[in-house]
Amino acid sequence: MATQGQVITCKAAVAWEPNKPLIIEDVQVAPPQAGEVRIQILFTALCHTDAYTWSGKDPEGLFPCILGHEAAGIVESVGEGVTEVKPGDHVIPCYQAECGECKFCKSGKTNLCGKVRSATGVGVMMSDRQSRFSVNGKPIYHFMGTSTFSQYTVVHDVSVAKIDPIAPLDKVCLLGCGVPTGLGAVWNTAKVEAGSIVAVFGLGTVGLAVAEGAKAAGASRIIGIDIDSNKFERAKNFGVTEFINPKEHENPIQQVIVDLTDGGVDYSFECIGNVSVMRAALECCHKGWGTSVIVGVAASGQEISTRPFQLVTGRVWKGTAFGGFKSRSQVPWLVNKYLNKEIKVDEYITHNLTLADINNAFDLMHEGGCLRCVLAMHA
Amino acid sequence: MATQGQVITCKAAVAWEPNKPLIIEDVQVAPPQAGEVRIQILFTALCHTDAYTWSGKDPEGLFPCILGHEAAGIVESVGEGVTEVKPGDHVIPCYQAECGECKFCKSGKTNLCGKVRSATGVGVMMSDRQSRFSVNGKPIYHFMGTSTFSQYTVVHDVSVAKIDPIAPLDKVCLLGCGVPTGLGAVWNTAKVEAGSIVAVFGLGTVGLAVAEGAKAAGASRIIGIDIDSNKFERAKNFGVTEFINPKEHENPIQQVIVDLTDGGVDYSFECIGNVSVMRAALECCHKGWGTSVIVGVAASGQEISTRPFQLVTGRVWKGTAFGGFKSRSQVPWLVNKYLNKEIKVDEYITHNLTLADINNAFDLMHEGGCLRCVLAMHA
Repeated sequence: MATQGQVITCKAAVAWEPNKPLIIEDVQVAPPQAGEVRIQILFTALCHTDAYTWSGKDPEGLFPCILGHEAAGIVESVGEGVTEVKPGDHVIPCYQAECGECKFCKSGKTNLCGKVRSATGVGVMMSDRQSRFSVNGKPIYHFMGTSTFSQYTVVHDVSVAKIDPIAPLDKVCLLGCGVPTGLGAVWNTAKVEAGSIVAVFGLGTVGLAVAEGAKAAGASRIIGIDIDSNKFERAKNFGVTEFINPKEHENPIQQVIVDLTDGGVDYSFECIGNVSVMRAALECCHKGWGTSVIVGVAASGQEISTRPFQLVTGRVWKGTAFGGFKSRSQVPWLVNKYLNKEIKVDEYITHNLTLADINNAFDLMHEGGCLRCVLAMHA
Repeated sequence: MATQGQVITCKAAVAWEPNKPLIIEDVQVAPPQAGEVRIQILFTALCHTDAYTWSGKDPEGLFPCILGHEAAGIVESVGEGVTEVKPGDHVIPCYQAECGECKFCKSGKTNLCGKVRSATGVGVMMSDRQSRFSVNGKPIYHFMGTSTFSQYTVVHDVSVAKIDPIAPLDKVCLLGCGVPTGLGAVWNTAKVEAGSIVAVFGLGTVGLAVAEGAKAAGASRIIGIDIDSNKFERAKNFGVTEFINPKEHENPIQQVIVDLTDGGVDYSFECIGNVSVMRAALECCHKGWGTSVIVGVAASGQEISTRPFQLVTGRVWKGTAFGGFKSRSQVPWLVNKYLNKEIKVDEYITHNLTLADINNAFDLMHEGGCLRCVLAMHA
């Protein structure tokens, strides 16, 4: 391929400073080094984690950077020693790596991977602790090991899931974050059984994916909780059977739910990132066995709290990252489930824009009507 | 039996007021009504929960009352409809009931039982919402559905475990609370696997029982944490392999443990009832899978807290009551394990006194050298 081994100059949305509009720049993308993969990103979606870091509230956020972590593309070239993908492969970059060799990967107990974390956490690549992005010689940090708001990006080979090339990349890009997070929270982390009563706090993409996962698991009641009642009608399509708007109740929402369910729900999921809601989600669980899973990401420094009696009397408090899915092994499986029409993806896409519109896309995210906005990167 | 159907007058330690010495009184114990069992208590031990309620800090504590919940005795008489025990049976009264019929018992997910909770929580019996204890006509509240600081007590039939009559009651009385709580936290709640690294916070009876349970489960390292280094030598006999005194470290204890264990422990157990220690116990767990179990009982109103990131990155926060053991089904099994020398009991008994000495026994509890003090009730 003509570009192999060359620096590629392409368009990318650069976050020069927190909370200032992203700027579409001509970015230089260096060739992949050993163990690295350069990917042509064709479609990327936006997620609240991008907005959070962009806002400047994330103390680990580094600027300037290229955000983005929910995308799909085609391998342009690979560095030395990369054997599991080759140029032309269709892939989804994964912010959660899977090396198969570290203590985490070998534990059989978690989808977290430790191999490249020390680099991706600080916006660089492992081999030389440098960025592959620059603008006129000035380095631009990577983000979450993915940086998909660029027409080309470089990622570690342990962070690339190879998928079936017949899958439409403008759709399956969503399988890089939000949808698997919700489905996996139900299937892998909570392990919801048939007949269970489930509460879902927050009816955005992740919350709806939780509802979808719970429906697939045979939950008997799926209670959706959101302060925007406009979200309720849409949520029915994802499996939500009952709706509660906390603003319409005087009692604390946990009490409302306990009263409505003869003692509480079997499983609850917090899909907002609000620590007060995380407490409510735990406390609406049934004594003796109710399990609450934190899915949303809270702002830095915020803390959850409750009385220990809640746990001593049998409730369990857990959390999940990427829904407990092992990225390289299981994202291709999720793609196949989509192709077999066993999971929804299209239904989460409410807007389609182009890279040039990325700031508008972020504005849209804050509107209740928006679930996922997919950007065409080369339009 | 001569006393059957009659009021029995016997000795009991009455807590007339919070934080005032218990008084040995002549107490009238009414005959058991339908579904109730009157037990001659032969031996009782003291537990920190008795001391906590006695102190007046328990907002649900009711006075005057007869405390005590870790004991063994012989059935004196039974009320109408009681079929599972008969006069002469050797029994352990259980503060955690097991009816086998309620939503909790039938769930298969918890050892909690809802049948008599509404009565035992407020110091009375279910059938008539009255106490069976009185002194000169003045009613004395029950405690935890057991009230074993009396030579005779009346309990609900769902709260009586019938045990092998060859078991020495002056020993197996301990199987009414602390020892099963520790063993069960490991075996039932955490389900510790062979090879695990375990941390135990607090090396009293419950903490040592956790260590014993972890050793039996094949844990590779059992780290005991206590601010009293004098407890370390004894703890070795119960399986503790390493000791840390937080007072000897400048770093927070969770950091000390993470450093010592290449990332954290697989399982931790808080056996003190201190909410700060509960946080440390969670945060010393390994990312990805570490599970922390709250075993200690915190003072009313106190709260646990942590950053949700601790859970999102795979730690699990749980609690346990009576170690998850179903009381009537499993206490007899624990007695048999003791008789088969598969679990320790004698080793937890550091003092033997009589009912008359009960105030001294409470003083002893606050000394580091004391694990369990057993009172002979008819000496």
